[in-house]
Amino acid sequence: MPGYSINREDYLKRLRRIEGQVRGLQRMIEEDKYCIDILTQISSVTSALRSAGLGLLDEHIRHCVRNAAESDTGDGDDKIDEAIGAIERLLRA
Amino acid sequence: MPGYSINREDYLKRLRRIEGQVRGLQRMIEEDKYCIDILTQISSVTSALRSAGLGLLDEHIRHCVRNAAESDTGDGDDKIDEAIGAIERLLRA
Amino acid sequence: MPGYSINREDYLKRLRRIEGQVRGLQRMIEEDKYCIDILTQISSVTSALRSAGLGLLDEHIRHCVRNAAESDTGDGDDKIDEAIGAIERLLRA
Amino acid sequence: MPGYSINREDYLKRLRRIEGQVRGLQRMIEEDKYCIDILTQISSVTSALRSAGLGLLDEHIRHCVRNAAESDTGDGDDKIDEAIGAIERLLRA
Repeated sequence: MPGYSINREDYLKRLRRIEGQVRGLQRMIEEDKYCIDILTQISSVTSALRSAGLGLLDEHIRHCVRNAAESDTGDGDDKIDEAIGAIERLLRA
Repeated sequence: MPGYSINREDYLKRLRRIEGQVRGLQRMIEEDKYCIDILTQISSVTSALRSAGLGLLDEHIRHCVRNAAESDTGDGDDKIDEAIGAIERLLRA
Repeated sequence: MPGYSINREDYLKRLRRIEGQVRGLQRMIEEDKYCIDILTQISSVTSALRSAGLGLLDEHIRHCVRNAAESDTGDGDDKIDEAIGAIERLLRA
Repeated sequence: MPGYSINREDYLKRLRRIEGQVRGLQRMIEEDKYCIDILTQISSVTSALRSAGLGLLDEHIRHCVRNAAESDTGDGDDKIDEAIGAIERLLRA
């Protein structure tokens, strides 16, 4: 069971709010709203997505990476490679 | 009429696709998908949002900022301040 | 003459400070300082570089892009393409 | 001893190269080089700094965080909080 399961409802709530913000962006385009206001809203959605990503990453390191490190299966290094790859993709996105 | 109006349908299409991706993220959470896969999808949505933002910024500078610069109303500087503020918010988001 | 020439001394001062920060990072490595403190310093240098970049971009749009837009040489669009490309590289860096 | 000690010479070499790039930026300003070329160079320095940061973060998680998780001192959670804070600062920088 993934680490975020404990807060699953919290993540779902955040993502539903983000979905609402993206629909709000569509309305802004349909109503010919001012570009700068649309860009401000895009920054706000991006920021909300990144926060959700950081939260998931936190729980992933706290649970999956740590469990792998503590177990004797020896796949701790692989899990860390995977997590670093995910951080790099978040940074470059 | 804002500069992006010419491509309004294109932006609406992009934002509907992003909305679908955010709903996909909710499904991934509900189905207990692996954290790293969810993070990869978050990076991909972030990247799509940024591209839409850059496109809007492009048209904003091309139309609104340029019109203000060419007109005699003298508000070219204000428009540039506003655009730089929007770029900064995108960078820090 | 590029737009930033007015503030050339200011940019040189900022970049000399950034150079000093990068030398400080080397000292931190040599003295086996704690990783997290080094990472905090890297974030601070990155942020200083981005601010300098945003300042240059501001003056570039204010001077070069606007001049091109106002002139009859018709290369306003090329200048805007160039500026958007630079913003995109800053965002993805 | 911090995790990056193994690759200390490699990090020092990278940071000396970054220092050289920052001095190159000063020369570009002094020689009135074109803004867009300076911005491209700033993106390249930012990207080199981020790569160094990601490398340090990788070794930090691989060594310090894992050691803390494996030890019985119970400060694994603190180390993870610290690492997540560092990732967040890198993202917002």
